[in-house]
Amino acid sequence: MLNIGSMTFNSHLFLGTGKYKDAKTQLQAVEASETEVLTFAVRRMNLFDSSQPDPFEQMDVSKYRLLPNTAGAKTAEEAVRTAKLAEAANMCDMIKVEVIGCDKTLLPDPVETLRASEQLLNEGFTVLAYTSDDVVLARKLQETGVHAVMPGASPIGTGLGIINPYNLSHIIEQAKVPVIVDAGIGSPKDASYAMELGADGILLNTAVSGAGDPVKMAEAMKLAIRAGTLGAEAGRIDKKFYAQASSPLGGLSI
Amino acid sequence: MLNIGSMTFNSHLFLGTGKYKDAKTQLQAVEASETEVLTFAVRRMNLFDSSQPDPFEQMDVSKYRLLPNTAGAKTAEEAVRTAKLAEAANMCDMIKVEVIGCDKTLLPDPVETLRASEQLLNEGFTVLAYTSDDVVLARKLQETGVHAVMPGASPIGTGLGIINPYNLSHIIEQAKVPVIVDAGIGSPKDASYAMELGADGILLNTAVSGAGDPVKMAEAMKLAIRAGTLGAEAGRIDKKFYAQASSPLGGLSI
Amino acid sequence: MLNIGSMTFNSHLFLGTGKYKDAKTQLQAVEASETEVLTFAVRRMNLFDSSQPDPFEQMDVSKYRLLPNTAGAKTAEEAVRTAKLAEAANMCDMIKVEVIGCDKTLLPDPVETLRASEQLLNEGFTVLAYTSDDVVLARKLQETGVHAVMPGASPIGTGLGIINPYNLSHIIEQAKVPVIVDAGIGSPKDASYAMELGADGILLNTAVSGAGDPVKMAEAMKLAIRAGTLGAEAGRIDKKFYAQASSPLGGLSI
Amino acid sequence: MLNIGSMTFNSHLFLGTGKYKDAKTQLQAVEASETEVLTFAVRRMNLFDSSQPDPFEQMDVSKYRLLPNTAGAKTAEEAVRTAKLAEAANMCDMIKVEVIGCDKTLLPDPVETLRASEQLLNEGFTVLAYTSDDVVLARKLQETGVHAVMPGASPIGTGLGIINPYNLSHIIEQAKVPVIVDAGIGSPKDASYAMELGADGILLNTAVSGAGDPVKMAEAMKLAIRAGTLGAEAGRIDKKFYAQASSPLGGLSI
Repeated sequence: MLNIGSMTFNSHLFLGTGKYKDAKTQLQAVEASETEVLTFAVRRMNLFDSSQPDPFEQMDVSKYRLLPNTAGAKTAEEAVRTAKLAEAANMCDMIKVEVIGCDKTLLPDPVETLRASEQLLNEGFTVLAYTSDDVVLARKLQETGVHAVMPGASPIGTGLGIINPYNLSHIIEQAKVPVIVDAGIGSPKDASYAMELGADGILLNTAVSGAGDPVKMAEAMKLAIRAGTLGAEAGRIDKKFYAQASSPLGGLSI
Repeated sequence: MLNIGSMTFNSHLFLGTGKYKDAKTQLQAVEASETEVLTFAVRRMNLFDSSQPDPFEQMDVSKYRLLPNTAGAKTAEEAVRTAKLAEAANMCDMIKVEVIGCDKTLLPDPVETLRASEQLLNEGFTVLAYTSDDVVLARKLQETGVHAVMPGASPIGTGLGIINPYNLSHIIEQAKVPVIVDAGIGSPKDASYAMELGADGILLNTAVSGAGDPVKMAEAMKLAIRAGTLGAEAGRIDKKFYAQASSPLGGLSI
Repeated sequence: MLNIGSMTFNSHLFLGTGKYKDAKTQLQAVEASETEVLTFAVRRMNLFDSSQPDPFEQMDVSKYRLLPNTAGAKTAEEAVRTAKLAEAANMCDMIKVEVIGCDKTLLPDPVETLRASEQLLNEGFTVLAYTSDDVVLARKLQETGVHAVMPGASPIGTGLGIINPYNLSHIIEQAKVPVIVDAGIGSPKDASYAMELGADGILLNTAVSGAGDPVKMAEAMKLAIRAGTLGAEAGRIDKKFYAQASSPLGGLSI
Repeated sequence: MLNIGSMTFNSHLFLGTGKYKDAKTQLQAVEASETEVLTFAVRRMNLFDSSQPDPFEQMDVSKYRLLPNTAGAKTAEEAVRTAKLAEAANMCDMIKVEVIGCDKTLLPDPVETLRASEQLLNEGFTVLAYTSDDVVLARKLQETGVHAVMPGASPIGTGLGIINPYNLSHIIEQAKVPVIVDAGIGSPKDASYAMELGADGILLNTAVSGAGDPVKMAEAMKLAIRAGTLGAEAGRIDKKFYAQASSPLGGLSI
């Protein structure tokens, strides 16, 4: 069970809605993933501009919680404005604060992310903050009252997986709200690893939408997240330098 | 589907039977794993010495294919003798050739492994050869006619996971028989990763029997293997150095 | 050549002065390192409290540029006060802003580091800012006018080396001032690697003072930094998935 | 000091002579490296076929020990024949047994390498065996009497560096003759790392000949090997999960 604000989810996977080749594939991938939360870029929608695509074409959005993000914002003010658009369109169960500070890496701006989170919390939003894996920044975001922190595994869309499991472990160890690993997941092993490290959930998009077979990959991610969750609960063996026989054979002879 | 010799399996997980804390936990872990193949050290059994433990206590072995291993053998001759014991006891659907060449790492002896494989094939056994991740050795084992090669991810019982995905990839790329990654798996992400690289199956023991909750970890491994299998079939995204937006925002404004 | 503010250095190594077993070992290690810059914690000195140790005992400090740090500060104000103490003692050629935000990881506080840097720049200090490897934060620090950024390879004293070469590469690629990799260096290979990635210098302490033979390790670090510097200038070969013969043998026969 | 057979070397670097853009660059790179041992493919030389290049053009070979290799051989017999050619040409202070078993990875054939080593030792050669990083194979080669083992860091010419430091550590820990890490070195950090792990020397070619500036890279490798050697002698700090202050500040206040 994953609790964010007043909401409770059985699924630990948040799925993005960008870059699918067609609406039908997206629909099937979303269903295969068993996600309960859909995320999308407000600026990329046809909320007020009908020339933009409808990311939910063919989908019954009433079955999902919606997590719009503020992608495209470079300042707190732009992020707040974007969030309010989503709310006005009645498409905002919670908001993902995403204030990009670097065009090449799409990594977030720590100062503007903090400011945007504070302002949106003051406005009553349920706020999830996309952040780098800076351990102290993740804590400062929690001190503003955010409902979840979303550290990146690696930059958006790179598929590089968890570059720094050390920082992620410290963020998780110190967290008082859910930690959703967001961005950089490339394959099922990455999703499993994040959950094994103790994350509470995963947000991903490109790893599924850009896969050869998005529907199959969506199911793979669903299973990987369950595997990692169970693995964390079960408690893995310690790593050792020298080998250890599965069946010690000392003193035996045939 | 995994085909080895004349046998066909739905499960891609082979599970060891050593080092569980009690028979009931082992039984439940085996069931949770949905494995169809049980592996065990012949020398560690009570085949002919009733003071040795019965690894299958409480279990209905008729429901499984049995894969005894020759652990304890340091030469081809010892391995052959051990295999024949298993066959005489009618507990040998296929044999895992395991000839250890180093007491500290429990890594296999390449020359004796090759010799043992040849001899057991001549005797009509279905042979699976435990090997290091030496790319050429894996091919030479296949040239002897083994029914599967079992390269280690890392040394037995270390839980270090896949140290050298490069060698594993080349073994898989060149393989003409199933590749079962055997030894060193520490957590679900490792099992998923092996399958994503194209392995045909996983053999593990300590990662489950030594986990805090072996039954839960057995289920985690089952799911991870399915996740990795689907991930390989789906085709993962390429890795990139620069970030790629999920929802490109070029030319948009609010 | 390394230029920071109005100073120019031949050496690319800044060496800390903490935790040596005795003053003589420290003196010899400093000399073996050929560093031109010594760094020390202002709060740990006997500037105004003679019960504190003198980190420069036996050393002719006039031969070095001094880089005091503000370790112990948890806010910008504390950092500024600490810097002024160093200046008042005439022991401050440049100041390393170090505002720790986490007692377990000793990772820096991004917001207070930014504020402290701004204030000290306004006071006319030559400012080097210790920071996490957050790519955007490193840029924001440069926008305040700092004379160098000092991203950590990994947390202070851990010896984990460069956990995230990706972020470090992006910081270096985008930098307009020198990048000094600070903290986490464990062995010579780490120092060489940082320079190969394009860093302008290395600050380290524990890797030398905590080594079995600090004097020998100081020399090793000096050589590793030269090796890495030359390596970066020379331009390394690309990495390849398939092998490439050193001496292609196509078409030859004996 | 590095002792192989009856020879003693101050340098721990063996340098290949393939693929330089011109003879002058090669000469300068060799001098900058301060190597005392040159290695070359016998089959690629103009020993008996004047249409082949002379790898030592412009060089005074009398200043070096020569380590021809048997590249191009796929069987022990071919390797022996190649070695004898080098000896007949009086260009063989020691022979590098190189029997390739895979065209894509250029990884060695373990069985033929063992056989070739035995035969050449019987003929009185000083034998250095190029091998994979298979721990048991490295020991078996030593049991035949080889004068050094040469495990690969990664496949020839890939520049992937040390993929499996675990196996390399075990080979070094168990070795009774010098361990020369051969193949796969990409940059100075890799050379330093190998020496830090306890290797006795490095053989490389492409990392220098294929660098943007081979002469500068040759010097970088020389320094990196010294850095790594000193680092191993000095004894590095342990790795830690939590940070450790360089200058503990407990109980202090300003």
